[in-house]
Amino acid sequence: MTTQRLILVSKRSPLTYSRNAKSGELEAMLAPGGTANVVADMASLLDVDWMCSAMTAEDLEMRERHPEGMKLAFTSSERPITVHMQQHDGQVFADMQEVMTADVLWACNNTLWDSWNTPSFGPDIRRAWEHYKLFNADFLRAASAQLERSPDAPVLVHDYQLSVLPGMLRQSHPGQRILLFIHIPWPSADYWRMLPVYMRREFIEGMLGASVVGFFARRWARNFLDCVRDLLPEASVDMDRLTVEYAGHRTRVAAMPLGYSPQAIDYREKEMPPDLRAWVAGRFMVLHSGRTDPIKNGPRAIAAFRLACEQSIAMRERGCLLVRCNPNRLYVPANSDYLEQLHAEAARTNKHFGAELVRVICENDVGNTLGCLQEADVLVFNSTIDGQNLTVFEASLLNRRDASILLSERAGAAEALADVVDLINPFDIAELSGKLLEAFRMDAGPRQERAERRRRKARGFDLPRWVDMQLSALEVD
Amino acid sequence: MTTQRLILVSKRSPLTYSRNAKSGELEAMLAPGGTANVVADMASLLDVDWMCSAMTAEDLEMRERHPEGMKLAFTSSERPITVHMQQHDGQVFADMQEVMTADVLWACNNTLWDSWNTPSFGPDIRRAWEHYKLFNADFLRAASAQLERSPDAPVLVHDYQLSVLPGMLRQSHPGQRILLFIHIPWPSADYWRMLPVYMRREFIEGMLGASVVGFFARRWARNFLDCVRDLLPEASVDMDRLTVEYAGHRTRVAAMPLGYSPQAIDYREKEMPPDLRAWVAGRFMVLHSGRTDPIKNGPRAIAAFRLACEQSIAMRERGCLLVRCNPNRLYVPANSDYLEQLHAEAARTNKHFGAELVRVICENDVGNTLGCLQEADVLVFNSTIDGQNLTVFEASLLNRRDASILLSERAGAAEALADVVDLINPFDIAELSGKLLEAFRMDAGPRQERAERRRRKARGFDLPRWVDMQLSALEVD
Repeated sequence: MTTQRLILVSKRSPLTYSRNAKSGELEAMLAPGGTANVVADMASLLDVDWMCSAMTAEDLEMRERHPEGMKLAFTSSERPITVHMQQHDGQVFADMQEVMTADVLWACNNTLWDSWNTPSFGPDIRRAWEHYKLFNADFLRAASAQLERSPDAPVLVHDYQLSVLPGMLRQSHPGQRILLFIHIPWPSADYWRMLPVYMRREFIEGMLGASVVGFFARRWARNFLDCVRDLLPEASVDMDRLTVEYAGHRTRVAAMPLGYSPQAIDYREKEMPPDLRAWVAGRFMVLHSGRTDPIKNGPRAIAAFRLACEQSIAMRERGCLLVRCNPNRLYVPANSDYLEQLHAEAARTNKHFGAELVRVICENDVGNTLGCLQEADVLVFNSTIDGQNLTVFEASLLNRRDASILLSERAGAAEALADVVDLINPFDIAELSGKLLEAFRMDAGPRQERAERRRRKARGFDLPRWVDMQLSALEVD
Repeated sequence: MTTQRLILVSKRSPLTYSRNAKSGELEAMLAPGGTANVVADMASLLDVDWMCSAMTAEDLEMRERHPEGMKLAFTSSERPITVHMQQHDGQVFADMQEVMTADVLWACNNTLWDSWNTPSFGPDIRRAWEHYKLFNADFLRAASAQLERSPDAPVLVHDYQLSVLPGMLRQSHPGQRILLFIHIPWPSADYWRMLPVYMRREFIEGMLGASVVGFFARRWARNFLDCVRDLLPEASVDMDRLTVEYAGHRTRVAAMPLGYSPQAIDYREKEMPPDLRAWVAGRFMVLHSGRTDPIKNGPRAIAAFRLACEQSIAMRERGCLLVRCNPNRLYVPANSDYLEQLHAEAARTNKHFGAELVRVICENDVGNTLGCLQEADVLVFNSTIDGQNLTVFEASLLNRRDASILLSERAGAAEALADVVDLINPFDIAELSGKLLEAFRMDAGPRQERAERRRRKARGFDLPRWVDMQLSALEVD
């Protein structure tokens, strides 16, 4: 891995500060979840100045105390990271976060609109778009200041909250090496076109400021290039080499699959809690695991399990389904609706069969989750769509029961694992039900053989390799 | 136009029979609406045997009386058509009609799924798919029988209810000239892939049995070819020539835009009813016209008009919005919900301004509709998506007030009329509102000039030209 100094830019911070009520001291807490975790694990392998958003008053207080950035190391074995927290105007941040990110881009890229009722773009969306650009400009200033200190530092921009920053940086630093990595799916040209005229083209142009635009899957990379062709007819797109020439600048688009962060699975206690073990009681355990988010598609997994139990007496006598979700932004109505829907589907199933065949557990204990991944007999990752899905890799490595894994063909991970999992259409409940019964009836021999192949395959997709792909694409030695 | 004998196949019949309650005689009624009308107008220009579905017991009675087909002529000036009505198993027809056509294909091709709640494919969908194929096979038998009588007759298959018939015909008649015309949009490869595995590929293969697959717009043709590439990697697709080589057979894909049927606008009384004229009372009339169908997007047109009235005192004092819809299958919940939503949005707007600025009229009088198209000052066709939209062409020809026309960029017609209408994003209410105000303030000179150019342009897209395009593509002299 490189020893070069790098600049990392992401909205999410690796940590956030709060005040200890007793001692009055500022205390750091690791930020939870998703992107921030893998980006933090990535940062720990590198020599980076990390630009991110301050989230609390205490974050800002720390920023005042350390104008040159805060040094931090997560574990003793890692290189220190210098964190530079940015302050944003409150309305700018809120519009970026709640409108552009949650309502517009998340929904668009995960194709959650029915076009009849949603989306509708009023004047508020235009303002949110202007604020989104101001939010990106905050990081232009921060990165530019850092580039004065280390002019040759390659810049790694992580995720879709900062998609137009590369274009801004390209203007001020024409020769800079800039990578933009998008952690979520990229939709088809027709779908992206649903966005307002003023936004959809400028957004793509901003992304093309990067030297490299990375996605988890080839499908997202190709969709992005289709959008370029659709909205920038003057750009020259090479679909075989995955390159774009536009406005005198060349951008490479690439699929860079990540599977798992060794730190996320190695350094933790993994144990299925005793009460859960007692409920399973040696039955054949189907596990659905994923945060509270409609794309995780738990309700259709329950419906498919119910159908399997209707079709097979053995399944309803000797099988059970555990739906495990970690609570994710439950103040968002779609997410709390999702959780309610899970409970309703489970209740409906249990009532139908007069026994608790399905249990929904929503809690945040990672050790428990990993313990369940170890003990499952079938793992269902049937996301309606998913940028990648890291849990399917973690499960491949951790599971001890040679489980069958049923993976949505619309998850980025489907490209990496196509020949070692069962791919499923996430909308086809009949198909999923059939695959559950197949898995239930599968002999130990083939299960074991496939699980071994899967472990070998999954092992290759570790975080250091992902980081190397990013650096190589930027030609960082 | 050709004098060759042709075979025309469509689910929709040009007419249907019922029994006169007094006389006891069978009486023919023209079938209402859309596809059937233009296909009937097309048939009237040709020498055709028309295979279609019997819809009533009386249709079947007529079929018994005329085993060789029923001769009919719509008007004295036209060539007679021989109609061969087919009988289907009740469950087969119901599954084709209510499940495959309404729930699956209409929703898929018009991109009406949010992926969270819809779609879900259970065992009923698999059965419906088998029935869909049986329905197509009914027409294989009918067309084959006719081909024994006229072996060289080219076969024109109209619309998506019969998409796999070409593949069946290709098997039994390898050298036959077969055209399949799809009247609705075609979605992106990612969207089409939402369909069950067992259906999505076989469906495309069935279509590729045709010598020519026609769509109204290039965008749909290209999307279709993207689906072919995505699901049939062994097919050889030429995106420039729009051809596919697959299974030893070559299919040409083509955009064949239709604008209007002269018969639909020439032979009718056109008059805006007096009470409506009194309500408009010389105000600047914005007109939204289209059947009761969510894709017609009336509620967002009302929301945009409300926004325009909020921004402009002149608009709310001198403008009004008429939403005219013809009742279309109101037993479908989505359609009746749509009508309710129109009334609710109108009531909300009128209450807000304390005056009836918006009126919703739902009725079937074509003369009244054409009268309104004549008298509008702005015409809004903001469909969320639309295979073509013929009304925008009719309006271009009929309107007497040099109206501005605001057309959805997601209507097939947008390709034909791009430079003579204002294209809009159907989801962007702020944009539509701005365009309404622009139109309101536009001077008479430029309006007149543009309306004249638009009339000239629209005039070229008549039905005889569309029929010629189909025949030429099949190389019928």
